[in-house]
Amino acid sequence: MKKFINSVDDLVPDSAAGLVMAHEQLLALNEEPLFIHRRVLKQDRVALISGGGSGHEPLHSGYVGVGMLDAACPGLVFTAPAPDQIAAAARCVDAGRGVLLIVKNYAGDCNSFQIASDMLDMDHLTLLVNDDVAVENSTHTAGRRGVAGTVIVEKIVGAAAEAGADLYECKALGDRVNASTASMGVAFSSCIVPDAATPTFDIGPAEMEIGVGIHGEPGRQRRPTMPADKIVALLLGPILKDLQLAAGRELLLHVNGFGGTPLIELHLLNKIATQQLREQGLQIKRWLVGNHTTSLEMAGASITLTALDDEMVTLWDAPVVTPSLRW
Amino acid sequence: MKKFINSVDDLVPDSAAGLVMAHEQLLALNEEPLFIHRRVLKQDRVALISGGGSGHEPLHSGYVGVGMLDAACPGLVFTAPAPDQIAAAARCVDAGRGVLLIVKNYAGDCNSFQIASDMLDMDHLTLLVNDDVAVENSTHTAGRRGVAGTVIVEKIVGAAAEAGADLYECKALGDRVNASTASMGVAFSSCIVPDAATPTFDIGPAEMEIGVGIHGEPGRQRRPTMPADKIVALLLGPILKDLQLAAGRELLLHVNGFGGTPLIELHLLNKIATQQLREQGLQIKRWLVGNHTTSLEMAGASITLTALDDEMVTLWDAPVVTPSLRW
Repeated sequence: MKKFINSVDDLVPDSAAGLVMAHEQLLALNEEPLFIHRRVLKQDRVALISGGGSGHEPLHSGYVGVGMLDAACPGLVFTAPAPDQIAAAARCVDAGRGVLLIVKNYAGDCNSFQIASDMLDMDHLTLLVNDDVAVENSTHTAGRRGVAGTVIVEKIVGAAAEAGADLYECKALGDRVNASTASMGVAFSSCIVPDAATPTFDIGPAEMEIGVGIHGEPGRQRRPTMPADKIVALLLGPILKDLQLAAGRELLLHVNGFGGTPLIELHLLNKIATQQLREQGLQIKRWLVGNHTTSLEMAGASITLTALDDEMVTLWDAPVVTPSLRW
Repeated sequence: MKKFINSVDDLVPDSAAGLVMAHEQLLALNEEPLFIHRRVLKQDRVALISGGGSGHEPLHSGYVGVGMLDAACPGLVFTAPAPDQIAAAARCVDAGRGVLLIVKNYAGDCNSFQIASDMLDMDHLTLLVNDDVAVENSTHTAGRRGVAGTVIVEKIVGAAAEAGADLYECKALGDRVNASTASMGVAFSSCIVPDAATPTFDIGPAEMEIGVGIHGEPGRQRRPTMPADKIVALLLGPILKDLQLAAGRELLLHVNGFGGTPLIELHLLNKIATQQLREQGLQIKRWLVGNHTTSLEMAGASITLTALDDEMVTLWDAPVVTPSLRW
């Protein structure tokens, strides 16, 4: 296993410290229990908290800041955060208007956030993200997995919270964005979890896993590698089937890298996906291309579509200042 | 070779088109000859052009925009752009105050930019970046290589051009930033050039290349892998020896990923480097952590230090709106 690492135990807290050092005017670190929060806390606004296993960076810690998350709770690599991290983060960032807990749909995360929820005295609601259309149930999940669409949900709901939406409005908006969002990914290689030190799954030199999960969970099928335009079509098919879009519908297209795929390939995928969607009579109104929801060093990518309405476009365009999304 | 690709010939132009699609309000594409430029061209300002082989994305195309580059000319993967790309880009973005050509020090790039320079009628100067302290001469280079410090040069000089500095001031500032900047990298794995389809170099399962170039060129030594803090010390040693900094000197620290290393590890490197530099009595005033100057999917990272003065800090902090650097 070749990684920049001192010890498996120190990786997550030391990496969080390194992130906060690089953004010292924007972020602050709570070391025990571990969470990252906005240095200047919001006043009189709903607070947004997310978290999950580490190894998906920049998700979630890279999206803490103005107009997005108020705190992020990183668990060990691919392991849910502990409930006391979530509860402590909620107490830190609560500004009297309630706390929205944004949870990717994995059994461990749901369990930790549920226990944390029972510990909280302030108003709070939970928003579940389950945008992965690849499989209905998975290794660590009942129901669909939450993947790259989480960034879209966090951005749009974050903008609403920043503008003064109340807790129930934020939750309803988030549910609406999640229901309008569908994702599917493909992997060429496995990631290597530091604690395991070996690849999570084996894959042949000319194979790819269609519908892979962001922890290397199995997808729909193992296929021989093929040209990029055919791979894009394989991903868009199930996404479009799920969303059932009317012709002319306006979309956000998010091409997400899993960590080990170069940007030159992600931009190629973007061109191909944009063309294929336009050929089907759909309009791409906004784009996001890059490594946003990763699986450590996994080579591969996912495509996410969100069917936009005018409110979502306005909130997507609203200013955001975080380490990894900024405009 | 597992890559998202349709054909080797189409990769660079199609990827450039995908980048421009995702940033249609900011960027425009010139297809023949290929270059990317600001959609809204600067008026009455020095224009900045860079370029080089593809495969280092986001360098350079991801830094076209307000406050940085006016145009970028991508060559084939790891191959210098053709002179006519550079000359056409210069004619496109020239706003009557002259053009500064920013060139990483590789023989092929120097040659192409020199030929382009001979083709140009407007005032223009060339700024050479050679920040890599690993080796004095290399496979494709006479003198030191230009690597991740290029982003620092492009940002600071771009801000000066945006503020109205003349061509000679931009060139002198760029020379000063380059002279104040030193970098060194390490690789765990080789990249795979699409045209070659096999790794550029072989490396053992527990070896790393200290001082590697961004095309996989050999560095100073092949060493067994070691803990991250020892690797950071191996990189910082030659950098600090080169810069000869006085105690208390203010620095910009840039931890750059080569493409295949997860962000969680880059942030760990940032924490370690920041601590080691502080222990030597140096002050880190600004940070940049992420995949900025990559080598396709190479696993590895580099560290860059720039010794700052007050003008550089002001220019670094000035607004920038590009696909990959924005504040």
